[in-house]
Amino acid sequence: MQSKTPKDSRTVMTDMVLPGETNPLNNLFGGELLARMDRAASIAARRHSRRITVTASVNHVAFNRSVPLGSVLTIEAAISRTFKTSMEVYLDVWMEDRFSGERSKANEAIYTFVAVDETGKPTAVPPLVPETELEKERFDGALRRKQLSLVLAGKMAPGDATELKALFLND
Amino acid sequence: MQSKTPKDSRTVMTDMVLPGETNPLNNLFGGELLARMDRAASIAARRHSRRITVTASVNHVAFNRSVPLGSVLTIEAAISRTFKTSMEVYLDVWMEDRFSGERSKANEAIYTFVAVDETGKPTAVPPLVPETELEKERFDGALRRKQLSLVLAGKMAPGDATELKALFLND
Amino acid sequence: MQSKTPKDSRTVMTDMVLPGETNPLNNLFGGELLARMDRAASIAARRHSRRITVTASVNHVAFNRSVPLGSVLTIEAAISRTFKTSMEVYLDVWMEDRFSGERSKANEAIYTFVAVDETGKPTAVPPLVPETELEKERFDGALRRKQLSLVLAGKMAPGDATELKALFLND
Amino acid sequence: MQSKTPKDSRTVMTDMVLPGETNPLNNLFGGELLARMDRAASIAARRHSRRITVTASVNHVAFNRSVPLGSVLTIEAAISRTFKTSMEVYLDVWMEDRFSGERSKANEAIYTFVAVDETGKPTAVPPLVPETELEKERFDGALRRKQLSLVLAGKMAPGDATELKALFLND
Amino acid sequence: MQSKTPKDSRTVMTDMVLPGETNPLNNLFGGELLARMDRAASIAARRHSRRITVTASVNHVAFNRSVPLGSVLTIEAAISRTFKTSMEVYLDVWMEDRFSGERSKANEAIYTFVAVDETGKPTAVPPLVPETELEKERFDGALRRKQLSLVLAGKMAPGDATELKALFLND
Amino acid sequence: MQSKTPKDSRTVMTDMVLPGETNPLNNLFGGELLARMDRAASIAARRHSRRITVTASVNHVAFNRSVPLGSVLTIEAAISRTFKTSMEVYLDVWMEDRFSGERSKANEAIYTFVAVDETGKPTAVPPLVPETELEKERFDGALRRKQLSLVLAGKMAPGDATELKALFLND
Repeated sequence: MQSKTPKDSRTVMTDMVLPGETNPLNNLFGGELLARMDRAASIAARRHSRRITVTASVNHVAFNRSVPLGSVLTIEAAISRTFKTSMEVYLDVWMEDRFSGERSKANEAIYTFVAVDETGKPTAVPPLVPETELEKERFDGALRRKQLSLVLAGKMAPGDATELKALFLND
Repeated sequence: MQSKTPKDSRTVMTDMVLPGETNPLNNLFGGELLARMDRAASIAARRHSRRITVTASVNHVAFNRSVPLGSVLTIEAAISRTFKTSMEVYLDVWMEDRFSGERSKANEAIYTFVAVDETGKPTAVPPLVPETELEKERFDGALRRKQLSLVLAGKMAPGDATELKALFLND
Repeated sequence: MQSKTPKDSRTVMTDMVLPGETNPLNNLFGGELLARMDRAASIAARRHSRRITVTASVNHVAFNRSVPLGSVLTIEAAISRTFKTSMEVYLDVWMEDRFSGERSKANEAIYTFVAVDETGKPTAVPPLVPETELEKERFDGALRRKQLSLVLAGKMAPGDATELKALFLND
Repeated sequence: MQSKTPKDSRTVMTDMVLPGETNPLNNLFGGELLARMDRAASIAARRHSRRITVTASVNHVAFNRSVPLGSVLTIEAAISRTFKTSMEVYLDVWMEDRFSGERSKANEAIYTFVAVDETGKPTAVPPLVPETELEKERFDGALRRKQLSLVLAGKMAPGDATELKALFLND
Repeated sequence: MQSKTPKDSRTVMTDMVLPGETNPLNNLFGGELLARMDRAASIAARRHSRRITVTASVNHVAFNRSVPLGSVLTIEAAISRTFKTSMEVYLDVWMEDRFSGERSKANEAIYTFVAVDETGKPTAVPPLVPETELEKERFDGALRRKQLSLVLAGKMAPGDATELKALFLND
Repeated sequence: MQSKTPKDSRTVMTDMVLPGETNPLNNLFGGELLARMDRAASIAARRHSRRITVTASVNHVAFNRSVPLGSVLTIEAAISRTFKTSMEVYLDVWMEDRFSGERSKANEAIYTFVAVDETGKPTAVPPLVPETELEKERFDGALRRKQLSLVLAGKMAPGDATELKALFLND
């Protein structure tokens, strides 16, 4: 299968925060943001694999800043690493000041998707070749996150998580 | 502040999977499940703190099994550990077979919420005292997950993450 | 068919009141509450019958108290009596004070569901055996409500509604 | 206050049944129909009273026929009787055959609304003068339904419900 | 095929403006109004053709007045002219003052629908015979609008748009 | 006021077509597409003006191709010309083949927005300088469309619509 780059799957979803999507503090409701990111990540995963894709896990989402009603929110999603049938998707979320137009980071998130065939069976995905410095850094981090997931799920002994072990021993 | 138990915040959200909430494979759309879990977790966090609560992070969600259209889905959320102003919420999601009524685990998830005052400033929450074996196990795991979050966010040196370090060294 | 108890069908749906679900007075929109109760009642009816169930009627819903934006609302539904192919579902709706956590009754409602097979044909449901005092009281009331429905729909002569007749004659 | 006729409050809401509003049998989901009727009834109550109106009760809704996906559904609502601060709204729901255009009755429903001022306090509404035979019949029935509500809620002794008593005694 | 009149397809959709449907100025969100008009127009087109109908174009919509939260909005749609397989639908949108009940025009819109068979192939529709003065005026205008559409889409040479040409030359 | 280019307001909204957004033919419901385009156009208008913007009109939308359930839909919006307080927004809508990834044009649309201050009063917007050939072509066409709107609304005599007149006379 021919390899692809993060650029091939980059997905941009720009949308507003309307009153029906806010919490009692008049900020974007956390669940709505999680749902939007899931849709953007799912499109990125499909663009990389050209397969049906299903959410396998949400690895980490930090809500650093609240997003007020009326904001313009831009979600950018791209594949950061692939494994045999799964893809890690890295998301950057930006908000835009209404008057100055200044863009600032609202949060980041990491989702994992699996490519499946029509019967729901996992199926192989093309390899990923990162290009920019940031893409390479996220590609490397993905292996540590993968091991971490497996250790936390009890599917890998901590001692076998070589990438993680190094992180703590070399400190 | 008087301590509470996980039972004090336990929240049960039973609901159906309707056609408007499915993906192209006719299963519950991942983003919709993330949004429902956020609402359930938010209620648990409020029941523990009696404060306004906002989603701080989604630490880990594994979608082990897809949930078909027409299923009955039960989300159970309870506080698993508290830190100064934040609360880890542990969620168990169950699906129910339409005809036999047999309940099976669909997935688990871990969210973190922060209690805030009317101005959005973080504010202290009551301590948690776990009671059952499972609650104690989740309470202990929460410290490792907290350190992990800090290490991954670059806010703690790996060498200071004593709980995590032990996990890898003792292996 | 083996009998069941109300406990076997008890369904708890806890959820929040978000801005998109309110009326111009900033309280839960009546139609949204009716829809949530319908979903909860439908699940209770399915748990009792293990069949597809469809709403047959809404017998009585009193909106005693308005439910403000940001409230936590808990709907509890359970079968209160069965007839050949239909089930009366009794719903209790509770709201919870945000700060004190005190629970108070928001309203009660009574829905009737019919169990159907895949072709939509009504099909028999298991008998119900009430256990607690409250369950027995609701079980008895259900017969009067059933006769009332039939009389109001012109399908039963008032003189044949023995339960109802007694109510007015013995007064 | 000047009296009004049912025609003054008649409200017509025609809409389609889209896929996101169906149940697993591909018919209009009961809760969605209840919500639509609530909105139509609320408009009729406002047209009669020219006040803010809130749902007080749903007195009786029979779902006689299921409404398939893709149907055109017409809800007609009008005030059938007023009491001091409350209004009974009678709803007729019609469905339309896609190809022949033939209209048939899907169901009827009765809702009660209360007029309130800006602080939520109940406030008087204009009297209603029924004009057609059907309007007069519904006007008369409303008093029996009102007494019934009070008796069922334990707010009126059965012996005082003169209209109802007559119904059963004269039989 | 037997001809029909605009009255045969007239569709009335009365509904409220709820908080989840507003923009940051607390008025009805433009996109929501466009969607409601599309549903009303689609029903009118189906009533005329008794076929499946799909939106072909939105020819002109002017949002003259904003519609505040809590308003009652009435959309009236009827066929204004037919071509071989397409129908022009003319919509009048009215808003109603909450207290005086006075109705005022919010805006007008023109949509075009095509009738299709089950495979999506365009299929002939009955001719339209306008009756009132306003209907005749809209019927005549529809031909100019049709030519305009074709000219703008590059499918008709301006010199062949006889109706339009006359408009500008005779001025 | 400093001029801007179309690039400054370009807005990309990529999203999926989910089951709750389809019509009975399993294609994207026209009203949903109109609503999504309105949100994208509104963001473009705000990026150009850095003001609150409200939909003034939808000038032309042709639905050339239906968009099937499960498609990825990309809406690109940018300002095509400004007038004193209004902005024409030109939208290109693309759909993407699930398996080949091939992008094809679904439709184009033209919306007009007005910039307003906090009281809703129209306010001046920066001039636009088109850069590419396509941008210049759309810039020129906007004047003809503006005159057309005014003529159709009876606010300009056809003889004063110099741009339009030329189009028909020179033919």
